[in-house]
Amino acid sequence: MNTLEIIKIGGNILDNHHQLEKFMYEFMKLHHPKILVHGGGSSASEMCQKLDIPIQMEDGRRITNGPTLDVTVMVYAGLINKNIVAKLQAQSANALGLSGADLNIISAEKRSGTEIDYGFVGDIDSESINTYFLKRLLDEQIIPVISAITHDTHGQLLNTNADTIASTLAAALCQTCEVKLSYCFEKAGVLQNVDDNNSLIELLNKETFANLKTKGVIKDGMIPKLDTAFEALNQDVQNVHIKHAHNLTSQTGTELTL
Amino acid sequence: MNTLEIIKIGGNILDNHHQLEKFMYEFMKLHHPKILVHGGGSSASEMCQKLDIPIQMEDGRRITNGPTLDVTVMVYAGLINKNIVAKLQAQSANALGLSGADLNIISAEKRSGTEIDYGFVGDIDSESINTYFLKRLLDEQIIPVISAITHDTHGQLLNTNADTIASTLAAALCQTCEVKLSYCFEKAGVLQNVDDNNSLIELLNKETFANLKTKGVIKDGMIPKLDTAFEALNQDVQNVHIKHAHNLTSQTGTELTL
Repeated sequence: MNTLEIIKIGGNILDNHHQLEKFMYEFMKLHHPKILVHGGGSSASEMCQKLDIPIQMEDGRRITNGPTLDVTVMVYAGLINKNIVAKLQAQSANALGLSGADLNIISAEKRSGTEIDYGFVGDIDSESINTYFLKRLLDEQIIPVISAITHDTHGQLLNTNADTIASTLAAALCQTCEVKLSYCFEKAGVLQNVDDNNSLIELLNKETFANLKTKGVIKDGMIPKLDTAFEALNQDVQNVHIKHAHNLTSQTGTELTL
Repeated sequence: MNTLEIIKIGGNILDNHHQLEKFMYEFMKLHHPKILVHGGGSSASEMCQKLDIPIQMEDGRRITNGPTLDVTVMVYAGLINKNIVAKLQAQSANALGLSGADLNIISAEKRSGTEIDYGFVGDIDSESINTYFLKRLLDEQIIPVISAITHDTHGQLLNTNADTIASTLAAALCQTCEVKLSYCFEKAGVLQNVDDNNSLIELLNKETFANLKTKGVIKDGMIPKLDTAFEALNQDVQNVHIKHAHNLTSQTGTELTL
């Protein structure tokens, strides 16, 4: 394996049947070994609403009590994961849906020592990734489809941010091959004006990111996403892009550099 | 691989934390390669009630419209599957949760031509089983944990009876090894009196089954379960038992013979 593509697909694309189909079409065009990572934010929130479970977010991160954890496991590791796998299998792509518990692919530590109690949220680093089985699967032309659920190795499932999972997988695997990490969502990339897809920043380094953050040009959920994406570069991941899900195989998007 | 254990675990055990723990303890004592198959009936029904989705059953089989399918996928392939996998991993058992879509392990045909429209229900036979990857997993000391969700290979997930999945897996795998198929649930086995665990029928052949069915001694959900279990014997599965989940490793239970 010389090159590995790790693709994170965001919630807004997953919510829209048409957008998801277009993304899948692009995804299938990638001929390198590949891993797909997904969360599924708004579906989980909708399910919480239907079940009268209060939604608590803090800096874009979900506070996960017991009932909320059950919803995230059902929606991420169940509904979304298995539907993606079935769609890939329909295109003769040998997909395998995984949570972090499956084959102990990703072990996490329940977050503790923070001012806010995040509940059943798991933190990970590149030591958390069981690269042995991932490489075995990729060598067999299997496409791991990884949901944003991990476990603590003592029987407890945990909710872990999907952007972080993608970044950490990339960091763990970039020592043995060239990793191309792409964060795909419903925007053209990192934008000067969040409402204008023509205001794309094609190349973004850490210094510019810091400046744009100070000026309030880059804000809200884009900040933790970029922090996570730059962390991959810090950990020697070779290529990191933020792009529209439909531009997965084109050059259009934001390339990050240190 | 000389001997393979295929264990079906029933919904009533899955619903009860204490019972599940005891079953897991027994399951871990099995030293042969093993596959665990589960459904999760009452959890799915409870979730349907919470979401105001009407529950329709016909001869103990769930009629599965679109919203009901989503619930079964969430509960079986998500919540129950991943919790079992995490519990097994906590005991250093290398479990891998699978739906039929994953690795295309089980492909099904949407049921058609019946008087009742069962909706998104998938029918399978031993040709539906992808034994190649199952054997590869077992050879790697991986424990497949299979939920009662299949797919039609065209992108559609389907709900398939877990008893049928266990029987069909056994039939597909019994050509290359000795298969011990055990249906585990909350009763001691097949009973003369359903309320009395001391009325166990230790050995049951097809003729006696037919007689006891006629007399109304064996009734309700036990009939399709036994039909499915005897079908495994018809397909040359070497050992078929119905037993209490806590007696998995003991001789106590009902042994079926032709």
